[in-house]
Amino acid sequence: MIGNLGSCNSMLITGASRGLGLQMVKDLVKRNERPKKIIATARNPAAANELQEITRSFPGVHVVALDVVSQPSIHSASEEVASIVGTEGLNCLINNAAINISTDLNTVTGDAMMKTFESNAVAPLLVTKAFLPQLQAAAAAQKTTGMGVHRAAVINVSSTLGSIQLNWGDGAQFKSYAYRTSKSALNMVTRCLATDLEAEGILCLALHPGWVRTDMGGPQAPLSPEESISSVLSVISSVTEKDHGGFLDYTGNTLPW
Amino acid sequence: MIGNLGSCNSMLITGASRGLGLQMVKDLVKRNERPKKIIATARNPAAANELQEITRSFPGVHVVALDVVSQPSIHSASEEVASIVGTEGLNCLINNAAINISTDLNTVTGDAMMKTFESNAVAPLLVTKAFLPQLQAAAAAQKTTGMGVHRAAVINVSSTLGSIQLNWGDGAQFKSYAYRTSKSALNMVTRCLATDLEAEGILCLALHPGWVRTDMGGPQAPLSPEESISSVLSVISSVTEKDHGGFLDYTGNTLPW
Ligand SMILES: NC(=O)c1ccc[n+]([C@@H]2O[C@H](COP(=O)([O-])OP(=O)(O)OC[C@H]3O[C@@H](n4cnc5c(N)ncnc54)[C@H](OP(=O)(O)O)[C@@H]3O)[C@@H](O)[C@H]2O)c1
Ligand SMILES: NC(=O)c1ccc[n+]([C@@H]2O[C@H](COP(=O)([O-])OP(=O)(O)OC[C@H]3O[C@@H](n4cnc5c(N)ncnc54)[C@H](OP(=O)(O)O)[C@@H]3O)[C@@H](O)[C@H]2O)c1
Repeated sequence: MIGNLGSCNSMLITGASRGLGLQMVKDLVKRNERPKKIIATARNPAAANELQEITRSFPGVHVVALDVVSQPSIHSASEEVASIVGTEGLNCLINNAAINISTDLNTVTGDAMMKTFESNAVAPLLVTKAFLPQLQAAAAAQKTTGMGVHRAAVINVSSTLGSIQLNWGDGAQFKSYAYRTSKSALNMVTRCLATDLEAEGILCLALHPGWVRTDMGGPQAPLSPEESISSVLSVISSVTEKDHGGFLDYTGNTLPW
Repeated sequence: MIGNLGSCNSMLITGASRGLGLQMVKDLVKRNERPKKIIATARNPAAANELQEITRSFPGVHVVALDVVSQPSIHSASEEVASIVGTEGLNCLINNAAINISTDLNTVTGDAMMKTFESNAVAPLLVTKAFLPQLQAAAAAQKTTGMGVHRAAVINVSSTLGSIQLNWGDGAQFKSYAYRTSKSALNMVTRCLATDLEAEGILCLALHPGWVRTDMGGPQAPLSPEESISSVLSVISSVTEKDHGGFLDYTGNTLPW
């Protein structure tokens, strides 16, 4: 089942300066059926050259400054976004920004654990809280009982490396205490949000984009950003209430926690 | 199968000033088959009156100052413990100390998330790293291939509230973003440690003690500290390599991540 991103009026992406966040914007702007308002956020928009270039070439792309670990930045972004989306609200929030500090048992420090947790798990929670009025407005505007990006959704970009179950045997080869822990924590944040926002019709989901050739994924990853994001967006476009509170990969398969 | 805590020469418990940590010490000292050396740590030993009382009445109980969120405190505790256990090493480390700040969707703050993560997930990792030489010594001293507290084990006291899977439906009634997230993170830390320490013969496990009437559990909890800890210690005494990297409750049942 392929959903339709044309029914999603507005979509906000964090960390759209490069990597998968930027690729989401690049992919979306070229579609016929696309969100009318694409809100691409970056912590330093002036330095996000490719993103600025896209804004000049395609209509309906709004670049907003958002450093996800700064509460004042979250606050001003939410005011700016409120005025962009208006009473229609925000249909889809994609918490994509994240960091990965290399940390094995020998090199892991408390500081690396804390910083990574802040960016990858706390920030998506606080960003979601800040945009909640806009998500609630979008969910309420659609008088349907169904869930999906036509209504309101929070997509937290997670990772198979955050699966506690899969961190065993071959799945345990990649060592990263800070990153793995932060993504397990994000999965729990997602699940908490899902139980709290279900009654308001806001779908919440954790999504693994695959192992992708970005600055984070490195050159050996099997997927190009184009391949990953084309699949990711097709999953996002077709999620329904049956996916609410779940953990999916870019092919739509369910992952164990 | 009931194991024998007499084969565990030394056991260290964090957060032994009150609650479940204190109850572990109380239970252990009365057993015939008990660890010869019980190292009860507390961040403020002078204020831990009940613990001091036990030390005066029973032999082989060593009270050591350990604030699990302070790196200097971890460092001096590890030096003190090294001299207590000597070349025999440390057979069992129980990471029990934890905090719980009440946080629902409205009240949760970045600060509460960070503080709880630091105490409940980062501290057990850094404490384990600090005591690793002693755990390695104990594991190496036992020339068996089996795993268990007769050799070397790290027991991380977790919670069903840290189970992402169980945080749904009735299981989602207790709201606590900070605590739940920290315990999911601790479960991932446990799993990372398990994969890294397996080759050295150090068993790692996440253990839910039940819902217990302590300051944290509150007066409505169904279990007394005595009931919980008697079961917890019987599980700990009998864990083997088949439990390595797992998530058990106080009855020995496996919990989903
Ligand atoms: N690539 C993979 O193989 C892979 C696999 C599984 C999951 N993921 C997940 O996919 C998402 C995107 O990863 P990626 O590969 O695109 O990573 P990336 O190439 O390293 O890009 C990370 C993006 O996040 C932004 N960011 C980091 N901290 C930020 C902050 N405090 N405020 C705002 N933006 C911030 C960066 O902005 P700056 O340009 O300003 O630094 C950048 O745009 C992440 O959640 C990642 O964990 C990736
Ligand atoms: N009670 C339950 O129903 C329940 C259920 C599931 C899991 N658990 C888990 O069981 C464990 C014990 O809980 P509890 O019920 O005994 O809690 P508690 O009654 O609140 O006692 C907490 C203990 O942790 C210590 N502690 C906290 N922060 C510390 C730090 N930075 N350094 C050293 N010690 C610190 C406290 O020391 P101070 O006296 O100095 O504050 C106290 O000894 C925790 O891991 C908890 O998450 C409890």
